[in-house]
Amino acid sequence: MSSHTRVKKDKEIIGDYETQVKEIRNQLVEQFRCLEQQSESRLQLLQDLQDFFRRKAELQLEYSRGLEKLAERFSAKIRSSREHQHFKRDQNLLSTVNCWYLVLNQTRRESRDHATLSDLYNNNVIVRLAHVGEDVFRLFKKSKEIGVQMHEELVKVTNELYTVSKQQQNVMKTYHMYHTESISAESKLKEAEKQGEKQIGKANDVSTSLLRHDDRQQRRSSVKKMEKMKEKRQAKYSENKLKCTKARNDYMLNLVATNALVAKYYIYDVSDMIDCCDLGYHASLARTLRTYLSAEYSLETSRHEGLDQLEGAVDAMDVRGDKHRVMDMHSQIFCPPARFDYQPHMGDEVCQVSAQQPVQTELLMRHHQLQSRLATLKIENEEVRKTLDATMQTLQDMLTVEDFDVSEAFQHSQSTESVKSASSDSYMSKVNVARRRANQQETEGFYFTKFKEYLNGSNLIVKLQAKHDLLKQTLGEGERAEYGTTRSCVSAHPSSTSSSTISPPTLPAKPRRMRKPRPCSVFNHKLFNGNMEAFIKGKTEYPNPQPGLRAGYTSGG
Amino acid sequence: MSSHTRVKKDKEIIGDYETQVKEIRNQLVEQFRCLEQQSESRLQLLQDLQDFFRRKAELQLEYSRGLEKLAERFSAKIRSSREHQHFKRDQNLLSTVNCWYLVLNQTRRESRDHATLSDLYNNNVIVRLAHVGEDVFRLFKKSKEIGVQMHEELVKVTNELYTVSKQQQNVMKTYHMYHTESISAESKLKEAEKQGEKQIGKANDVSTSLLRHDDRQQRRSSVKKMEKMKEKRQAKYSENKLKCTKARNDYMLNLVATNALVAKYYIYDVSDMIDCCDLGYHASLARTLRTYLSAEYSLETSRHEGLDQLEGAVDAMDVRGDKHRVMDMHSQIFCPPARFDYQPHMGDEVCQVSAQQPVQTELLMRHHQLQSRLATLKIENEEVRKTLDATMQTLQDMLTVEDFDVSEAFQHSQSTESVKSASSDSYMSKVNVARRRANQQETEGFYFTKFKEYLNGSNLIVKLQAKHDLLKQTLGEGERAEYGTTRSCVSAHPSSTSSSTISPPTLPAKPRRMRKPRPCSVFNHKLFNGNMEAFIKGKTEYPNPQPGLRAGYTSGG
Repeated sequence: MSSHTRVKKDKEIIGDYETQVKEIRNQLVEQFRCLEQQSESRLQLLQDLQDFFRRKAELQLEYSRGLEKLAERFSAKIRSSREHQHFKRDQNLLSTVNCWYLVLNQTRRESRDHATLSDLYNNNVIVRLAHVGEDVFRLFKKSKEIGVQMHEELVKVTNELYTVSKQQQNVMKTYHMYHTESISAESKLKEAEKQGEKQIGKANDVSTSLLRHDDRQQRRSSVKKMEKMKEKRQAKYSENKLKCTKARNDYMLNLVATNALVAKYYIYDVSDMIDCCDLGYHASLARTLRTYLSAEYSLETSRHEGLDQLEGAVDAMDVRGDKHRVMDMHSQIFCPPARFDYQPHMGDEVCQVSAQQPVQTELLMRHHQLQSRLATLKIENEEVRKTLDATMQTLQDMLTVEDFDVSEAFQHSQSTESVKSASSDSYMSKVNVARRRANQQETEGFYFTKFKEYLNGSNLIVKLQAKHDLLKQTLGEGERAEYGTTRSCVSAHPSSTSSSTISPPTLPAKPRRMRKPRPCSVFNHKLFNGNMEAFIKGKTEYPNPQPGLRAGYTSGG
Repeated sequence: MSSHTRVKKDKEIIGDYETQVKEIRNQLVEQFRCLEQQSESRLQLLQDLQDFFRRKAELQLEYSRGLEKLAERFSAKIRSSREHQHFKRDQNLLSTVNCWYLVLNQTRRESRDHATLSDLYNNNVIVRLAHVGEDVFRLFKKSKEIGVQMHEELVKVTNELYTVSKQQQNVMKTYHMYHTESISAESKLKEAEKQGEKQIGKANDVSTSLLRHDDRQQRRSSVKKMEKMKEKRQAKYSENKLKCTKARNDYMLNLVATNALVAKYYIYDVSDMIDCCDLGYHASLARTLRTYLSAEYSLETSRHEGLDQLEGAVDAMDVRGDKHRVMDMHSQIFCPPARFDYQPHMGDEVCQVSAQQPVQTELLMRHHQLQSRLATLKIENEEVRKTLDATMQTLQDMLTVEDFDVSEAFQHSQSTESVKSASSDSYMSKVNVARRRANQQETEGFYFTKFKEYLNGSNLIVKLQAKHDLLKQTLGEGERAEYGTTRSCVSAHPSSTSSSTISPPTLPAKPRRMRKPRPCSVFNHKLFNGNMEAFIKGKTEYPNPQPGLRAGYTSGG
């Protein structure tokens, strides 16, 4: 195979190696430059991050202060207001006002949390970034030191391939020298062998002729001399060949060691040098960013807690409870007055409706008239009530429509970065809103008209029913123990105590939609010291004359 | 019972009723005042909420703009930077730089979301609040109308108890009148009866004496007259008594009806009037607050998504991947150079280490010397490596300590509202940080010292091992087909193509800790066009001379 290889001269070989080594040295220089450039990029990134977080901390603080001021403005207003004095005691706090207080609480919470965020950016995240920067700088210097050591070894070993130093013989040069000598010895040996063959040829030529003894002697010594020279040259050749072999072996062993070291550097050492430079950079940067994330996630958790509290308060909004709270607070205004008692005139000892003859017949007739009148009125009013109920249901459907989901406005579509306008949302569009409101007010107007109608009817019914019931008691219902003895003249009898409260009208029981029971908490109100509720609960046969207003109307939800 | 009751005069009775009715009227006035006051409070609350959200919308917009400017400042810097041009292609983006880009993305996202929030406050929440306010005002007026109707009825009915109107006779007055007349008729009747008895007495007295016929006649007609008068008075009394009974009955029936109406009003009507006033207030306010909550929750969801993306990028930080990306981008710098080839001198046809006699003995001796030297060196270097590994582990523990949880700073204790300072946290306290950093740098210094030591050792081992292996091949290991034929002079043989890359040094296999396999993605790098990795994977017997640096060092996490 080597037969095709062009024979190279010493200088050419050295030149080739020199070029190769020069290329390697250029790479080493570039590798350092690359490492330096990477460290600079990192320092720049860390500096940018620090600047970023410093400015973001400022923004957080500004935002926090704005929120704090906002919350304080309204809190101060509340503190100084009449309502606050009124509702100061928690049990008197209206559920709607409670929501407002929680909105302000949430604002204060956000303010504090953003201040905390600002603090964490300044005193934790930025400090960490500064430390990472110090580490990057220090590790670059230390890694370069390691790299310098690696490069020195590499340069030394590759140089030794072809340069001659004072301390050490160059193995290739030695090989070249011994090989040159070996070639020269070989050629000399060959020349000697050629001359020897010539001499032998001469001897054979003259052997056929008669030679002088002297000539023969001379020729014999010449051949011997030739043989000796040949031997000497053979020895010299062998010696040089051995030296050359040893030198070549050394050269080859040296070459294999050099190649191994170069390979080790390129495959492992350069990577290790970069690893030294990278030492902890990713881990420390990750910890810094995780600190940032932890802060942001914690803010989110806190925010969420606050929003949940507010949501709970919105869920707990209670129109009925609030009404009772207000009535309790003004109990003297809403407390039913004392009953109008029967006042006997000038010692009149009769204290109950008299149904003796001759008035009995008239009363009986009157009772029957009332009964039939009431029946008609109730049927009529029941119709009005049904219309009222249906209208209220329509109103309630309008008032509790779930139109509050705005999550769509926060969808970040990847294609368009534009923010959807909240007002462009079809449900909250001006036309839609106006239409809905007009609709609502129309229904409301109809409801009020019907309600007045119902009120008139029920007022009349209540009055007639009271009379009817009293007549019924008087006219022979006295057999029943309850009515006959203790209650026969309860409506008109002067009470023994002046503080007795008015009795509710007693309408006969009738199969009607039951009143929705009020939530338990409502029973705690103190307006009637619990008596009214107990009374109503005890008298379940007593229907609500205006049930329409209460239908499906328990909370603000 | 009525015997104990003080006999009241007409005026007194009327006065009592008047007082009672006056009290009721006062209550009615106060009830309206209470309703009005409640509506005013509601309007005030709604106004406050509108002002609050208007100002909060401003704050959101300011904050949004601040964030936008912040993000834009750094984005512009990135766009104009050299690195950006370099890393533009996604596959070249370093994992650390990716995190920085996501931090900016998150800032932009927050900016957009807070702008959306501002928009929703202005164009949805505030609009709703204004509508609720209109409703409160309108419903108060309408409810008051209903209340006026209720009150009118109540006033009319209670008035009728004791006042005389032109249209209607007052039943109590009638009762009083007939009772008075009844009393007078009774007394007259009694008087007549008394006189009659007197006359009869007289008649009995004179019956014993002798009377004149005239006198007798006169007395008889007088008795008859008396009888007649008695009868007349009896009839008058009965008539008046009946009239009185009827009037009393009417009065009582009227009283019971009045009491029933008053009771109805206090127990139901007043409550219904308040319900009319409340109509939809809680529901509409709840929907408004739910809109606010929906906006805030949606912002939170969006924020969370962004943070999760960043967290994912932090998790995916990859020191090894980044290293390969950098090396790939500078492949010409890190590409291993061509092997130094054996250059035969002046047509020297020998191209492998010669182990013929007489050099064989010497080579054998040299081989044995290398073998024992290597054994010693490897044991020594293995000790250094163990120390290196342990030191790296210590460093890694320091660098990956989980010190980034700052959630405690966001705990809102109910007792103290003070914000915990992030810097006061024991882990991030200045003393602690300084101590930790000093400790880290000390360990790092020790690591570098040991690494240099190890590097020196491994360089020597690699060189000697290469020589040893070549000698081993030459000295009769040639029997093995692999080494004997194709690879006998592979290290020193001139390559047929000049572009051949350098062969890695071949150290004998030895039971050592396996190299951690690189993550798959890393194998995609193009530095050696996949050849190096394939080579290393194919040659599993080839150990890593510096495994310490790679121990437990796969990602930035």
